[in-house]
Amino acid sequence: MTQQTDIRDIAAIDLGSNSFHMVVAKVVGQDLQLVSRHKQRVRLASGLDSQMNLDNASIERGLECLAMFAERLNGFEASNVRIAATHTLRRANNSHVFLLRARDVLPFPIEIIPGVEEARLIYMGVAHTQPESTSKLVIDIGGGSTELVIGHGFEAQLVNSKQMGCVSYTNRYFSNEKLTAKNFAKATLAAEQKLETLAAQYKRKGWDIAIGSSGTIKAIREVLIGLGFEDGLINSKRLDTLIDQLCEWSLIDDIDLEGLTPERKPVFAAGVAILRAAFKSLKIKELHYSEGALREGLLYEMEDRFQRLDIRMRTTENLAAKHLVDLTHAENVARSAQLFLQQVHPTLGIRHSSQLFALLRWSALLHEVGLSISLQAFHRHSAYILKHTNMPGFNREQQQVLAILVRFQRKALKLHEMEEFSLFKKKHILGLIRILRLAIVLNGQRSEAPLPKLTLSIDEQSWHLSCDDSEWLNNNRLLSADLQTEQEYWSNAGWQLVF
Amino acid sequence: MTQQTDIRDIAAIDLGSNSFHMVVAKVVGQDLQLVSRHKQRVRLASGLDSQMNLDNASIERGLECLAMFAERLNGFEASNVRIAATHTLRRANNSHVFLLRARDVLPFPIEIIPGVEEARLIYMGVAHTQPESTSKLVIDIGGGSTELVIGHGFEAQLVNSKQMGCVSYTNRYFSNEKLTAKNFAKATLAAEQKLETLAAQYKRKGWDIAIGSSGTIKAIREVLIGLGFEDGLINSKRLDTLIDQLCEWSLIDDIDLEGLTPERKPVFAAGVAILRAAFKSLKIKELHYSEGALREGLLYEMEDRFQRLDIRMRTTENLAAKHLVDLTHAENVARSAQLFLQQVHPTLGIRHSSQLFALLRWSALLHEVGLSISLQAFHRHSAYILKHTNMPGFNREQQQVLAILVRFQRKALKLHEMEEFSLFKKKHILGLIRILRLAIVLNGQRSEAPLPKLTLSIDEQSWHLSCDDSEWLNNNRLLSADLQTEQEYWSNAGWQLVF
Repeated sequence: MTQQTDIRDIAAIDLGSNSFHMVVAKVVGQDLQLVSRHKQRVRLASGLDSQMNLDNASIERGLECLAMFAERLNGFEASNVRIAATHTLRRANNSHVFLLRARDVLPFPIEIIPGVEEARLIYMGVAHTQPESTSKLVIDIGGGSTELVIGHGFEAQLVNSKQMGCVSYTNRYFSNEKLTAKNFAKATLAAEQKLETLAAQYKRKGWDIAIGSSGTIKAIREVLIGLGFEDGLINSKRLDTLIDQLCEWSLIDDIDLEGLTPERKPVFAAGVAILRAAFKSLKIKELHYSEGALREGLLYEMEDRFQRLDIRMRTTENLAAKHLVDLTHAENVARSAQLFLQQVHPTLGIRHSSQLFALLRWSALLHEVGLSISLQAFHRHSAYILKHTNMPGFNREQQQVLAILVRFQRKALKLHEMEEFSLFKKKHILGLIRILRLAIVLNGQRSEAPLPKLTLSIDEQSWHLSCDDSEWLNNNRLLSADLQTEQEYWSNAGWQLVF
Repeated sequence: MTQQTDIRDIAAIDLGSNSFHMVVAKVVGQDLQLVSRHKQRVRLASGLDSQMNLDNASIERGLECLAMFAERLNGFEASNVRIAATHTLRRANNSHVFLLRARDVLPFPIEIIPGVEEARLIYMGVAHTQPESTSKLVIDIGGGSTELVIGHGFEAQLVNSKQMGCVSYTNRYFSNEKLTAKNFAKATLAAEQKLETLAAQYKRKGWDIAIGSSGTIKAIREVLIGLGFEDGLINSKRLDTLIDQLCEWSLIDDIDLEGLTPERKPVFAAGVAILRAAFKSLKIKELHYSEGALREGLLYEMEDRFQRLDIRMRTTENLAAKHLVDLTHAENVARSAQLFLQQVHPTLGIRHSSQLFALLRWSALLHEVGLSISLQAFHRHSAYILKHTNMPGFNREQQQVLAILVRFQRKALKLHEMEEFSLFKKKHILGLIRILRLAIVLNGQRSEAPLPKLTLSIDEQSWHLSCDDSEWLNNNRLLSADLQTEQEYWSNAGWQLVF
């Protein structure tokens, strides 16, 4: 029986700007055995118009691919599937349309992940595939973005994502389809400009081995092998040879190289130019290739589901430390909030296994990060930081939930400022906001005396807060006044608080 | 002759929510001799409507008072007058109307200062008036805001400003004019709630002596003396006695206390309630009184004009350190920017003595603070931090200038996002933006090699950047590309850059 539960199928999907990939694996005890890989060239990025809206044709292509993946995932439990969307869906103004329609086709949540989170996951994918303990530079040139990470072991240390990719650079620098030295030079120089802000830092940090992952770099490696460089290593000289070779054909369409698939051909030259720029900017000597990529990163983190929790916990602790949060107080608030959620989660319709429990705790630990900017309106500063800072392990919407919880931690409930969610229900978030606010008010005096036993309950009309010590509030006039003020804020938002 | 230049008259004015004050002093060598004090009760706060607009009557009262002050300041040099506006003009949406009309009446610039800056200046005023080297808690209850500072010597360490004052609390808790225990309890409790977020921190820090300043606390002291407490010390018990006494009259109008001026009477009860709350929240034992206040703070900082420069320099350095700025790079950028401003300031119409030189330098030192939040769009994060963080020594508009310079340090020049200025000319700020951007681009590669000699010049149409080493740009392809990109940004904003 134990043996039985230890074997399960898991799957990871990445919705890239050029292709969608799925990888399915079997978890056997401590082991992860890859079962199958699926890939479809969807060219999502090419459907992005100048207003940054995805056109209908590209949405259809994406949904068609997801429908195909869905067949393979028939019978999979939701907790065994993880789907991440990257650059194009990050940028598209109408990505919510895609997400909404995707729900009908594929019954698993799709997470849009920030560029730096994508970079970290790619690093994890490579680190698990090439588990030497040396320090690594990992480069991944995608359709819309390029990720660059330096890390050691399983820890990504310098993490960046730049908005340049083989699809967007094809459109910008090879739109005339001409393979000229001038086009290559323009594209390479533009990529060098993109890398300029991070180059100094990366060179200072250094690495033992440089590894590339994903389609662009894989294609370059295979073409180099086809040209006779049998070890498949990539270096500056070979890239220059490759560019010279490419320029001998005058048009992209004419390229005829061993190892180059017809699908890769249209965006190959731009990918080569970007990689050439990375070699120049970072002074890379040689680049190896790894099969590990974003989807493997997703997969390996799913295998040990606690690992991701760990990473996010560490992110939270690091942020709290960086902003000198009063941790005693934050822990008290977190404890009260968690107790309340324990009491009311069935009424709110939040399952016990929901990640909202963890998000509530983290928001409590981080609710005062904004004090590092200023006491005045610090809830807004906290939200600004949590929305914009790099938070390893968090997808975009989780980060947004944290930002919203801390934004509404105090003062008037201007709920019209709240954004829409796709992975979470608004009514759940509104429930957490109320819980967090109550936890903050009740711990507002930062006294060392522990709170008495408090009970929170919800009926149709209102939220009820009661205390087993009936004299407690009478003896705490200030707290009682704070609760009254809070009651007014709730009432202005159409909520009712009874205590 | 040396003796002669050492004697000069200086003046400081504060435009408070309740009264405007002016103090004039003579600087004799190292000494500051107060010459005269002027005060007029303008009740600016009472002219603020629910939309936060100052009504015309209160604007007129303010201007009338300024016209009176202007007579006294006839013949003063601009550098010998400093004028600071506080809470009401901070909050009023139409404060620019007041500032604009004030220019016609009083030919000196008016600075709106942030609450925390007001608090710091009050502390400086008290610290110079009571120069014991013990640690001090300084409290100032104004018409619209209350400042609380703990400091040591001349250094303010904990600095806060809370939006509660004797005028606003009179309107909110004594609007029925009734002196009842209930009104006092409500006002006191509300003030305690306001102080709750800072109370724990202040009590932890502690102080040797507590000192009050300005009208509210002065009036309380004088009334206590009138009641027979001849030492004029304020403590909890005496405040309770005073409140009991006040409640014996049923209406504010009936108060008849020795030492209470008719002008102070309407807002006296609210002031007592706020002070009572401060005693409770911070567990103050006794409070002394000091003649030093905001205007003295302004005055003493003017006496040694380098002192304020020092404070702002220290603020800049502290912020750069807190956000782990790459100081070598920041210094290089600052140096280039200063050289350029030296070259073009006459063409731009910026005087050599202008504070814009210092602001440009500080913006260069701080342009990368936003990296502490994220590399992505860090110029916006830098601007957010500089706009919202506490910056001792800076008035609101200086802080705004820094925020705008770093906001526009790179990427597209979306100049419609730029706010209006009252102390500075927009065309000067636009000049500094161009200079800072060029300095950043030129130092973009963070190389250790120093830049060659560069010359910036401006003619009617365009800005010209030239280099004495004609081969330099040809040997720096990346920099040359960066300058071309920059040229495009300028051109999109209707500017022309030639190099």
